[in-house]
Amino acid sequence: MKQSVYDLTQQHRSIRNFKDEPLSDEVVKQLVEAGQMASTSSYIQAYSIIGVRDPEIKKALKEVSGQQYVVDNGYLFVYVIDYYRHSLINEKENGNMNTSFESAEGLLVGAIDVALAAENVALTAEDMGYGVVFLGSLRNDVAKVSEILDLPEHVFPLFGMAVGIPSDNDQGSPKQRLPFEHVFHENKYNADKVAQLEQIERYDKDIQNYYEQRTNGQRSETWSEQIVNMMSQKTRPDILERLNQKGFIKK
Amino acid sequence: MKQSVYDLTQQHRSIRNFKDEPLSDEVVKQLVEAGQMASTSSYIQAYSIIGVRDPEIKKALKEVSGQQYVVDNGYLFVYVIDYYRHSLINEKENGNMNTSFESAEGLLVGAIDVALAAENVALTAEDMGYGVVFLGSLRNDVAKVSEILDLPEHVFPLFGMAVGIPSDNDQGSPKQRLPFEHVFHENKYNADKVAQLEQIERYDKDIQNYYEQRTNGQRSETWSEQIVNMMSQKTRPDILERLNQKGFIKK
Repeated sequence: MKQSVYDLTQQHRSIRNFKDEPLSDEVVKQLVEAGQMASTSSYIQAYSIIGVRDPEIKKALKEVSGQQYVVDNGYLFVYVIDYYRHSLINEKENGNMNTSFESAEGLLVGAIDVALAAENVALTAEDMGYGVVFLGSLRNDVAKVSEILDLPEHVFPLFGMAVGIPSDNDQGSPKQRLPFEHVFHENKYNADKVAQLEQIERYDKDIQNYYEQRTNGQRSETWSEQIVNMMSQKTRPDILERLNQKGFIKK
Repeated sequence: MKQSVYDLTQQHRSIRNFKDEPLSDEVVKQLVEAGQMASTSSYIQAYSIIGVRDPEIKKALKEVSGQQYVVDNGYLFVYVIDYYRHSLINEKENGNMNTSFESAEGLLVGAIDVALAAENVALTAEDMGYGVVFLGSLRNDVAKVSEILDLPEHVFPLFGMAVGIPSDNDQGSPKQRLPFEHVFHENKYNADKVAQLEQIERYDKDIQNYYEQRTNGQRSETWSEQIVNMMSQKTRPDILERLNQKGFIKK
């Protein structure tokens, strides 16, 4: 008997080492079809999915991401926000749609559409026995990715996803999430500073213990420390400029 | 035997009429836990989920969305991008993190984190026999939603989701998506205008036939027409301003 989707979600962990077993075209098609059936805002369908097998293209994308698993995987997806077909309709109809898809609202709609589709792909792949990892790292150089993949205006590469059979030495390790009570608010948001800071402190201790146990005391880092280290430098400071160049958040 | 996740995705349709059967707290908790296990960018966990049972709050949110099913459902979720806890860490550590979460990159990370979690909730709920509908309509008035839900700075309401047992007279109807070949590109994006316009024309005819059959010829609309009608007026023109007010895309 198959497991429930709830159980499947609880087993999720990112996989970064895959066996050298390419996905079949049939599996790729099923995964994309699963993605396409996710909800889409007002039927806009503002995305496309690029499936990459070509080793040269994978290598070029790896230069952007810096991650070996962009090359070594069973298959590589790149998920793009796509208003190009809407722009063609607009051109054909001599319409006035640009202000819609070039707005901040248009960007949010596109990003949400893409991510809903991608999570359908992820869960479907995991249900089939594959492992996946998301690759936000493709945003390290949006101009380069656009060049490699021939992305026209109004198409923005949001993230990639490597898929494949997990290698025997990478079964991943589930990362302990923020406790339910931190993420879930009843009826209204609880912005009580003291309460939230206490929650964070407890979570920090849990995460510290987790790392210490997993690494025999070699690593001892709280979640707060990770967040501060990561976010104290502005990541991808050029994204607004790149969005503008690709025709997003123009007005 | 349970169905595969692939099969589950193919049966998805939005449900807008629910039976008067509230979800139990236990089911709500499971759904949120499913959401929490979705991938999150670099462990940032930039979201919170607000679960609404209070009829007064539902009613107030319905004023924003204009949709009766914001009130009449088994349960209502509101998904928010949440950097409030990161801002508290920043304050405590006297850090320099604002440029990160107030950037366009920070917004994208948050929107993606939220949507991945929400799609886990959607699929888990559907697997349990519930129906769901996403509510982008809450962005009609972000300031009002923020007031109703007490959202502090660095918390942005991205969308809602109504969940419940589908009523007997609403089993939904699956909307035919863009054909696989339109959405899927092999190795590189194919921006050939003539080819894409031909694809759109064929899809338009399919959609027109679909509506004509479903409505005995009373409705006859192509996808292009729907897109032009919807996008020719700028939807939610204030979103960039609202994002700025909530502390997003500041730099």
